[in-house]
Amino acid sequence: MLHSPKRLFVGRALRTDRLGETLLPKRLALPVFCSDPLSSVAYATEQIVLVLGLGGLGMLRLTPWLALAVVALLAIVVASYRQTCHAYPNGGGAYAVSRDNLGVRAGLVAASALLVDYVLTVAVSVVAGVAAITSAVPALAPHAVGLSLVSVVLLTVVNLRGVRESGRAFAVPTYGFVAIVLVLLAVAGVRLAMGQTMTAASAAYGLVPVHGTGGLLTFFLALRAFASGCTALTGVEAVSNGVPSFEEPKARNAAATLTIMGALAITMFVGITALAVATHVRMAENPAQLVGLPAGQEQRTALSQIGLAVFGGGPAFYLLQGFTAAILILAANTAYNGFPVLASLLARDGHLPRQLARRGDRLVFSNGIVLLAAVAAVLVVAFDADVTRLIQLYIIGVFVSFTLSQAGMVRHWIRELRSLPETRSRRRARRSQAINAAGASATAVVLVLVVVTKFTHGAWIVVIAMPLLYVLMTRIRRHYDTSDAEAAPRPGGVTLPSRVHAVVPVVKINEPTLRTLAFARAIHPDDLVAITVRVDPVETDRLSTEWARRDIPVALTVLDSPFREITEPLLDHVRSIRRRSPRDVVCVFVPEYVVGHWWEALLHNQTALRLKTRLLFQPGVMVTSVPWQLASSHAAMDSEDRDPVGVG
Amino acid sequence: MLHSPKRLFVGRALRTDRLGETLLPKRLALPVFCSDPLSSVAYATEQIVLVLGLGGLGMLRLTPWLALAVVALLAIVVASYRQTCHAYPNGGGAYAVSRDNLGVRAGLVAASALLVDYVLTVAVSVVAGVAAITSAVPALAPHAVGLSLVSVVLLTVVNLRGVRESGRAFAVPTYGFVAIVLVLLAVAGVRLAMGQTMTAASAAYGLVPVHGTGGLLTFFLALRAFASGCTALTGVEAVSNGVPSFEEPKARNAAATLTIMGALAITMFVGITALAVATHVRMAENPAQLVGLPAGQEQRTALSQIGLAVFGGGPAFYLLQGFTAAILILAANTAYNGFPVLASLLARDGHLPRQLARRGDRLVFSNGIVLLAAVAAVLVVAFDADVTRLIQLYIIGVFVSFTLSQAGMVRHWIRELRSLPETRSRRRARRSQAINAAGASATAVVLVLVVVTKFTHGAWIVVIAMPLLYVLMTRIRRHYDTSDAEAAPRPGGVTLPSRVHAVVPVVKINEPTLRTLAFARAIHPDDLVAITVRVDPVETDRLSTEWARRDIPVALTVLDSPFREITEPLLDHVRSIRRRSPRDVVCVFVPEYVVGHWWEALLHNQTALRLKTRLLFQPGVMVTSVPWQLASSHAAMDSEDRDPVGVG
Repeated sequence: MLHSPKRLFVGRALRTDRLGETLLPKRLALPVFCSDPLSSVAYATEQIVLVLGLGGLGMLRLTPWLALAVVALLAIVVASYRQTCHAYPNGGGAYAVSRDNLGVRAGLVAASALLVDYVLTVAVSVVAGVAAITSAVPALAPHAVGLSLVSVVLLTVVNLRGVRESGRAFAVPTYGFVAIVLVLLAVAGVRLAMGQTMTAASAAYGLVPVHGTGGLLTFFLALRAFASGCTALTGVEAVSNGVPSFEEPKARNAAATLTIMGALAITMFVGITALAVATHVRMAENPAQLVGLPAGQEQRTALSQIGLAVFGGGPAFYLLQGFTAAILILAANTAYNGFPVLASLLARDGHLPRQLARRGDRLVFSNGIVLLAAVAAVLVVAFDADVTRLIQLYIIGVFVSFTLSQAGMVRHWIRELRSLPETRSRRRARRSQAINAAGASATAVVLVLVVVTKFTHGAWIVVIAMPLLYVLMTRIRRHYDTSDAEAAPRPGGVTLPSRVHAVVPVVKINEPTLRTLAFARAIHPDDLVAITVRVDPVETDRLSTEWARRDIPVALTVLDSPFREITEPLLDHVRSIRRRSPRDVVCVFVPEYVVGHWWEALLHNQTALRLKTRLLFQPGVMVTSVPWQLASSHAAMDSEDRDPVGVG
Repeated sequence: MLHSPKRLFVGRALRTDRLGETLLPKRLALPVFCSDPLSSVAYATEQIVLVLGLGGLGMLRLTPWLALAVVALLAIVVASYRQTCHAYPNGGGAYAVSRDNLGVRAGLVAASALLVDYVLTVAVSVVAGVAAITSAVPALAPHAVGLSLVSVVLLTVVNLRGVRESGRAFAVPTYGFVAIVLVLLAVAGVRLAMGQTMTAASAAYGLVPVHGTGGLLTFFLALRAFASGCTALTGVEAVSNGVPSFEEPKARNAAATLTIMGALAITMFVGITALAVATHVRMAENPAQLVGLPAGQEQRTALSQIGLAVFGGGPAFYLLQGFTAAILILAANTAYNGFPVLASLLARDGHLPRQLARRGDRLVFSNGIVLLAAVAAVLVVAFDADVTRLIQLYIIGVFVSFTLSQAGMVRHWIRELRSLPETRSRRRARRSQAINAAGASATAVVLVLVVVTKFTHGAWIVVIAMPLLYVLMTRIRRHYDTSDAEAAPRPGGVTLPSRVHAVVPVVKINEPTLRTLAFARAIHPDDLVAITVRVDPVETDRLSTEWARRDIPVALTVLDSPFREITEPLLDHVRSIRRRSPRDVVCVFVPEYVVGHWWEALLHNQTALRLKTRLLFQPGVMVTSVPWQLASSHAAMDSEDRDPVGVG
């Protein structure tokens, strides 16, 4: 089974009845579903400092307050999503919750938001991970795009193998990152307690304000910094989407995992932000803002500057950078879990192409995984692997889906309460409803803040992309509805065609042509004719002569073609047969070369392909390919003998 | 006939017997075949000044001597190609001449060189033309890539219309450019005679040398400048390729056109170079070399600086820039004439895919035109529309084909001389041979110079691309040879299959399925079976029940599929039929949805397509598509009713 490259990378095919085996215990679910929210502490602080820095050094004193606001929001959202885990043990993604409670349209809005956001999660996380690497090894900075693309490919391969193996592969980096950050905080605490001062390298640089700081402007800048800090919340919803992947009791395990994640994320975010303030980290969107930064030198990430200040270089610093890079690149994995499942739900509901609803032979939705990877790779290249530019597009989608999903939960509890007579359950439901309402309001406010403060900085791209996706999904659904209605069996039943006319186009007398003629004769049609089109008179005369000489038992008809077109005269001929006897069916037999390499396919069948495509538009015509296997195709047949990646 | 967008842009289809009408008189042949060599005077001088500038101001005094060397070389090459026009009245492209006289391998080397070079001609000319525009209107500089791509598209459309219309469309810019440059030289001459001084804007800048100037280094830099100046020679061979497009007497008209072109090119090149020296134009590869150039400001082209100095702005200056842009963009047209013809010759000899040998319905080789445009567009984008970077790849191909073609001519005359008894013809042949020998030696020497001096500056890309193309073309030829041999009719003749087994895969009971069953029954197979694959047991049970309820007169077989694969169980079934009775043929009937829009195609038939592809690899199987036309396909059928561009 391991003879094909696909098996080597993806592993052997898994039987459908092994689906149950891929359930996750909490200790594996945490890295699989929480690497995204945990890893975002690696850049959330930096984003706050970066935006505040636009207003100059004085603005940086707002950092702790903004961080506190982010923490409060995170706590509310975690509490809110715990309710979703309990209410939707079969997976309470924003799509399902919004659709069930707020209607199909709201569901599709949430779905558009999530699809965009999953793609951005992959792009942002991978690029930020690579930034952690280049902060440790500045010599790699020029290869950021290449390194990011390699990471995307690796993630794709791991995920095509299936979710269980992913959980294992990702436990080490996630727990490693959490551990090294806690060590960082502990060491820093001890050093502070001992009265040592720790200073970031950038503390020595001056910072030129580029943003006005009059009352309203300052306020607006603070809001924008808060919006950027909210990247810490991305990915919180992944756990509630993934409830069905948890071991029993699914809902309780999922809710517990959410709480653990929330506690860890808050601890790390608060600690890192405190250290950023204590070590005087300075960052700038445009390096020209930093007075003293040597020309041409890249800024290191905030976390790497803190690491350097606390650990003073050495192995601990490189461990920090290594685990940061690892968890960030793997955070993209949250999207690799979420996107294909969401796409399959949408495909099952007819909003996306049906092939996204099919599980591949490793029990994962291979087509969705490949699609996600492709779009994310395009983003990485288009934005030149620049975190600060990519992050502008990020989190709009998250907050749209947060808001819709929690609003949907409020509605959910209203319905539940109608049918709940018992007092204790009612009280619990009321409490859940209150929590969800708080979550929905808070995230709705933040959504408005994010759109307003980031719109001109790139967020407009997302504001355009989401409605486009929405329209696309509605149109796909409409198309499926129409075509299903058209194709529905009709009451009268189908009448059998009266007669079968066989037509064989001929270009050259060779074995494929002769075999096609033999196959056409084998079905004993009521009428059989070979047709050649005269483009070059000399060649056609030669063909007719050889036809006669070989005594081929089928009449050869020659059609004229003053415009050198081959397809059109043949189509005219087929049409004329159908005109004469509309109740008959015409069967056109086309010889087709089968080759071993894709590039060889470009060398054959171009005319045949074109003819077949045109014939398909003619009613009452069937097109029969008679394959002629070239020797080179035999090798390809063996390696084709199992399902190639992603088409499944 | 004008109802499709293609007809609107490309014009109505032309009958084969109108091929004779597209011949060109000299006055139209000059713009069609000579816009490339004539236009290159717009940048050849600049390239010399640019490279010499690397050595500092002192090096610039070598300019006149290098220009003189280029002129001498141009005169030799023009004289040499005149011989080719007479010897090859049916078109003496480097490919034909090298193949006939030096063998197939030399022919393919020349062809690889020419193909690469045609693509670069399009890219360099278009980009240089856009540089002329941005020199006149600096505000357009940021849109260079977009403007270049628009130009490529325009050229493509014009050329898809056919060569005669092209000749007319291109006469005005070519003659306009020649006229305005001659006016420029005349005005400058008068102003100099009147003792006025004319100074280029860049004359005021300092020039920092960045290249060592010790004896050998200076010599090497001068050689590199000469190699860059040789861009003036590109495109000289186009006339000899195009002899068959000339009016009778073809050979003499072509040779005369070559001479006129040579005289014009030399006059303009000498004049522009003299003015560059007189007005002290300074150019630099890296703008940082120029002391005094305002930061962020783009350098104007050398010709535009001269124009500004001589005309002092005003309408004459804008006319110069306009005609320069026009002729440069149209110079790409030489390649649009040469590439498709060469590709068709190579395709006819089996070295390139056969569809490149077919004339489209406007009598031009549409596929070659589209291919050329696509590759050139990729180059423009990849090199960011930067003339100086693109020009490094240029002219290696030209000089490879120059050398081979002229060496081939020397060999040609050796053969001719053997069969020529008469004294006067012998003397003429000897003279021609001597001219060609001089040309071959001169261009061979320059080829070595170009490769050595430009290799590290980007020319290595071409040094890799040419052998790759050579290998590709040999492999394509080998493939065609093998497949023709395999497909040759066998002495025994073809035996008719004993029986026909029909197989109809079923997913769902709807009209397309029922009709496919009806068509399958219509051919009266010896054996007919409907097959469904059990992926979801619930759905399969529902299908079986409905099958029974509807009383469908064909047996339904259910196949198991533990790995959720649909294709493999069906293939196994087909294989088992063939194993039981190897002399029979299996006919698989697949319903296929026919849609109106390309995106709808993504929503259907994915499983059918996959199944059909796999079935083609099975011997003794034919695959019959039974199309089901959705309502949306009817509109598409009308617009498809004539041949779309390029697939012809």
